[in-house]
Amino acid sequence: MPGNSFGHTFRITTFGESHGTAIGVVIDGCPAGLEFDLDFVQHELDRRRPGQSAIVTQRQETDRVELLSGVFEGKTTGMPLALLIRNEDAKSNDYSHIADKYRPSHADFTYQAKYGHRDYRGGGRSSARETAARVAAGAIAKLFLKKNGISVTAWVSRVGDVTLDKTHEQLDFSQIEATPVRCPDLAVAEQMEALIRQVRKEGDTIGGIVSCVVQGCPPGLGEPVFDRLHADLGKAILSINACKGFEIGSGFAGVTMRGSQHNDPFFTDENGVVRTRTNHSGGVQGGISNGMDITFRVAFKPVATIVQAQESVNEAGESVQVEGKGRHDPCVLPRAVPIVEAMAALVLADHFLRNKMAIIRIEGLKD
Amino acid sequence: MPGNSFGHTFRITTFGESHGTAIGVVIDGCPAGLEFDLDFVQHELDRRRPGQSAIVTQRQETDRVELLSGVFEGKTTGMPLALLIRNEDAKSNDYSHIADKYRPSHADFTYQAKYGHRDYRGGGRSSARETAARVAAGAIAKLFLKKNGISVTAWVSRVGDVTLDKTHEQLDFSQIEATPVRCPDLAVAEQMEALIRQVRKEGDTIGGIVSCVVQGCPPGLGEPVFDRLHADLGKAILSINACKGFEIGSGFAGVTMRGSQHNDPFFTDENGVVRTRTNHSGGVQGGISNGMDITFRVAFKPVATIVQAQESVNEAGESVQVEGKGRHDPCVLPRAVPIVEAMAALVLADHFLRNKMAIIRIEGLKD
Amino acid sequence: MPGNSFGHTFRITTFGESHGTAIGVVIDGCPAGLEFDLDFVQHELDRRRPGQSAIVTQRQETDRVELLSGVFEGKTTGMPLALLIRNEDAKSNDYSHIADKYRPSHADFTYQAKYGHRDYRGGGRSSARETAARVAAGAIAKLFLKKNGISVTAWVSRVGDVTLDKTHEQLDFSQIEATPVRCPDLAVAEQMEALIRQVRKEGDTIGGIVSCVVQGCPPGLGEPVFDRLHADLGKAILSINACKGFEIGSGFAGVTMRGSQHNDPFFTDENGVVRTRTNHSGGVQGGISNGMDITFRVAFKPVATIVQAQESVNEAGESVQVEGKGRHDPCVLPRAVPIVEAMAALVLADHFLRNKMAIIRIEGLKD
Amino acid sequence: MPGNSFGHTFRITTFGESHGTAIGVVIDGCPAGLEFDLDFVQHELDRRRPGQSAIVTQRQETDRVELLSGVFEGKTTGMPLALLIRNEDAKSNDYSHIADKYRPSHADFTYQAKYGHRDYRGGGRSSARETAARVAAGAIAKLFLKKNGISVTAWVSRVGDVTLDKTHEQLDFSQIEATPVRCPDLAVAEQMEALIRQVRKEGDTIGGIVSCVVQGCPPGLGEPVFDRLHADLGKAILSINACKGFEIGSGFAGVTMRGSQHNDPFFTDENGVVRTRTNHSGGVQGGISNGMDITFRVAFKPVATIVQAQESVNEAGESVQVEGKGRHDPCVLPRAVPIVEAMAALVLADHFLRNKMAIIRIEGLKD
Repeated sequence: MPGNSFGHTFRITTFGESHGTAIGVVIDGCPAGLEFDLDFVQHELDRRRPGQSAIVTQRQETDRVELLSGVFEGKTTGMPLALLIRNEDAKSNDYSHIADKYRPSHADFTYQAKYGHRDYRGGGRSSARETAARVAAGAIAKLFLKKNGISVTAWVSRVGDVTLDKTHEQLDFSQIEATPVRCPDLAVAEQMEALIRQVRKEGDTIGGIVSCVVQGCPPGLGEPVFDRLHADLGKAILSINACKGFEIGSGFAGVTMRGSQHNDPFFTDENGVVRTRTNHSGGVQGGISNGMDITFRVAFKPVATIVQAQESVNEAGESVQVEGKGRHDPCVLPRAVPIVEAMAALVLADHFLRNKMAIIRIEGLKD
Repeated sequence: MPGNSFGHTFRITTFGESHGTAIGVVIDGCPAGLEFDLDFVQHELDRRRPGQSAIVTQRQETDRVELLSGVFEGKTTGMPLALLIRNEDAKSNDYSHIADKYRPSHADFTYQAKYGHRDYRGGGRSSARETAARVAAGAIAKLFLKKNGISVTAWVSRVGDVTLDKTHEQLDFSQIEATPVRCPDLAVAEQMEALIRQVRKEGDTIGGIVSCVVQGCPPGLGEPVFDRLHADLGKAILSINACKGFEIGSGFAGVTMRGSQHNDPFFTDENGVVRTRTNHSGGVQGGISNGMDITFRVAFKPVATIVQAQESVNEAGESVQVEGKGRHDPCVLPRAVPIVEAMAALVLADHFLRNKMAIIRIEGLKD
Repeated sequence: MPGNSFGHTFRITTFGESHGTAIGVVIDGCPAGLEFDLDFVQHELDRRRPGQSAIVTQRQETDRVELLSGVFEGKTTGMPLALLIRNEDAKSNDYSHIADKYRPSHADFTYQAKYGHRDYRGGGRSSARETAARVAAGAIAKLFLKKNGISVTAWVSRVGDVTLDKTHEQLDFSQIEATPVRCPDLAVAEQMEALIRQVRKEGDTIGGIVSCVVQGCPPGLGEPVFDRLHADLGKAILSINACKGFEIGSGFAGVTMRGSQHNDPFFTDENGVVRTRTNHSGGVQGGISNGMDITFRVAFKPVATIVQAQESVNEAGESVQVEGKGRHDPCVLPRAVPIVEAMAALVLADHFLRNKMAIIRIEGLKD
Repeated sequence: MPGNSFGHTFRITTFGESHGTAIGVVIDGCPAGLEFDLDFVQHELDRRRPGQSAIVTQRQETDRVELLSGVFEGKTTGMPLALLIRNEDAKSNDYSHIADKYRPSHADFTYQAKYGHRDYRGGGRSSARETAARVAAGAIAKLFLKKNGISVTAWVSRVGDVTLDKTHEQLDFSQIEATPVRCPDLAVAEQMEALIRQVRKEGDTIGGIVSCVVQGCPPGLGEPVFDRLHADLGKAILSINACKGFEIGSGFAGVTMRGSQHNDPFFTDENGVVRTRTNHSGGVQGGISNGMDITFRVAFKPVATIVQAQESVNEAGESVQVEGKGRHDPCVLPRAVPIVEAMAALVLADHFLRNKMAIIRIEGLKD
């Protein structure tokens, strides 16, 4: 079983390497009749693309996306949607010096160990460039979710020690894109940006946390017992480059709470909708969405490429020194925001369709 | 797509409800020729079973396991292994009072919303009783991994505020089973047990953290780009009842580190094996195991069933009071240890077999 | 990827060997709210079971089925349904003489070559006994289909040279079960039965053809481009023991027709339903059902077990003589009828649910 | 579950419509280290492409293939291989007259019924143009199989009433490409070609049979009980446009044989290899290859597009006349040959890799 597909009913397959001809994605299972919006796909790619601001990698890729199939007269046909992005600014020479060396905490060694033959240029397939395909597919998932009243919003809530201590209800989402760092609290964003600039000056990198909320999700998404909604969200998010942790609702902080504090009491609101007073569950109970906001947080480690000499070995196992050249991000967080949103949107679209089976379970049986 | 199967090459399908006739599991893809050991399966189930100590639920289930297929003359045949555990001490009357009420932070509401018809007795399929089937299957995964030099070991590293601050290298694993709480540091275990007893006395519950290490795993396990080893581990673990967070290696703590601190330098050890000086990666780089120990941590929330009156609603949406009766655990952590191990073992066995494809990629092509 | 599961949304996993403890099946994805009817499952098993008449194997198995999970208060809950059938009349001693010999045209050699360790008793997992699990699962698929107005009917249309030359419209389906041979034309059935008796007397076996029709299937089932409805039907049917051929609609006979003869003209009937004047397509066009009857035919070879000395080799590769003992069928056709129906029903139930995705594609998008 | 992917370990996903921008395929799971040969892929596409001879459709497509990913320094890397073919000679105006009409025995009606919105130009996704992507992927499967000593060869054995009555041992495969009709017996080929020309002159079409043999396949391929090798071959083949039947080994002709005639006696040949004296099984026993040649036959109906007025209805259900314009094949058989080979090669490559799991079952367990 190869691993380049994700999802069951809304299913994507990605391809392409950092310095190859192109990257792209095939989306199979997108419902027919959806108004397609290539500009929106491009807009999402622009949020992820390199060179967009002073605090990200200066590789210049316009990430111009081309649609190859699946749309007729402006609407999806239910057939596979293929999207293509050609690589433009691939400076492969930047990487010849590490052709036979393993950069610490990169995938060079593990790919070599697994496949015995690898495209070392820019990390090849292991490069975060692959996530452009995810963002393109995620944009289409977002179009589908929007039609069904569901939105996915992420932001940077921590860079190193600089933390945004607010719940999503306290934030103004319109400010997320106001700064290159994608933290909606502008004062905190300024501190984060300063830290990133300083770290870059030192030839170093820094990690952080992305927070995300899914709003408008109806109850019922998630398939017991293994394909719980938050388990699939966790897998989706953990498959993003540099991600080291995932927590939903109360997460790791919840381990010190008592059940009497943590339990979310039910009530019926003024519209007759069953809701919970608190939301420590993060919108998922028993692996199924309960109609409340779905909230999760994601830990990203510092980027592995640093401009400092590091101890390592080469393919012969001999001791060598490795120093990062290549263009890279001092902090992955700002560009991780659209990627987190994309992966979450893909999970939600997939489970939205899977849940239709359950509705059939109830209503679809004729007597 | 239903959700009761897990894994691709070493694949399990579980069935059964808390108060139904039986629970069980079918394992498809276990290699032929493996010496089968039903006593070991039973031993693992005994570690998970209710009523095993004073600090867990007092439901009395012997969890006696029966093998139905897949073994001939003591060895697996490559055919599906089916394992059956009949329910014995199901006191369904304990639950009649909540037949039409939603217990806070249980799956009652979400199952009703999704399926429109549910077995409310003991939570039905959403009960943690389902995890017995996982432990039985995980035992067979462990047998397979053991043959290949791989072990999986978990322990309780935190209950509420009581924390074990040691790395796995500093622990004596032989002490894990020495106390009912499954923390290998006996002094800390004593504090944890005291806290659990106190919480139970208050009719309340408490959460905690399980730590886990996989040892002896060769480099190469994990399938880019979506089925990264730690992404599949994350999904497996997050699918366990009450789990709210998963982190690998440095996890959430790594977000404050610089790349220069976090990167794991490579060196060649005295046996000619490429290793890393530190292990912030947690044994996985680029989604593929690198041969180092795989370390991860799991957050469990406090059990939802408490012996206190709580606000809720019934199926008609009317305001009601709910009070937990039924037998339950004041703290899920001690019994979660074998479950975490089982799910990790299932992921490792699955990826061990999937990785054989990669080895074919290198060696299996004749000229 | 192991191969003991079938279907995607209505998904079954079977287990068990001919002379092991039990055989069974787990059905995952059966909609909730379906009235469960264990008597009907048993009725279908009785149609398949050995010892039911003088012209089938005399192994005595009551094939008593037990439900283990997935039903509450008489209705399915959407959770996995597990069904168990214990083996009773397993005379394993019948097989000791072929423990290390390969019976011609059985699976003895191929299982040994593939797995290196096999349960030789009665063919182990390769025995047609495994199909009891399919019939049990198929019965539940039939219950689901019936609720949606779809029926599946099969009959024996050929045994050796004795052929029933009538279309399904010319037959009285109520006569299928009137004779042990399951051919609804009683005169032809008599000839078939006579042939089977004669063949058995000679210690030999004979093949034949099962015909099948699916009625009441709405347009829209089938998923381009690989999971065409008739491709999935073909796979399902070809996976039945002794099956060597599958054809839909005009099948092999259609190769001599001109397009002008073969094309099925459309018209709108008196109820406003689009139908075709002829049905050479067999109810499927472009891989998708068109609302007409789905018709297909299945070729079964003669059973491999014969009571005659045959040339073969043993595991050491030495020349040996093999003579069938064991109890066996002189002709598999009569008992194949419920198996063909079961596999077809499983495909239809699976695609009925998969097609709901397409309906969402059209109607499920809110503006 | 969408249906545009095929295979489990060697897995393809195709996309594209007849008159869209491009068609293509992503291959996931091709082993690393395989020498890539784009010329061979092009060669296979040339065998399938329209306009190649006087007896096929005159649409002019060069079907020039571009590789987008997965190869580095001439060898596969184990990463997805993406192949792209742009459409060039799409005359969409040819189809405006059938925009709202259903051509008899085409997929127009069923796609409309299923999706509610379709690309009618040239049949859109339902066009046989989609099979170019299969042939491209199949070429890579063939490269992989060749490295492992396995070949797949197909030829036209029947057009209408003109039949080639020879086994594959009696044929000279080097003559298959000698005539445009792809029948290796030149005298029969001439008759077939004459028949095709005559049928075309009449504005009509004709069906036929493709025969295929897989040589060099080792014992062990095929996964009981559902993913039997011939069941997966059957599904693969039946998913090809215009295919109505599939039979392996003795097929439908075997139904009149006695077991004593049909059984294939085993013997050990001069090289110590276990073989069978006859091969009525067609190289597969119990769903697993036995090392003998795998032989199967495929029925294709006459192409639906004819240049004659036909009765039909439009989307409003009104009675209309439809007459084929567009360019089309009078007989699909010659171009079906590389498609049948491609699909068979994909199944073999997939099962070759899946079977490696079984070999691990035997040898891969360390003590």
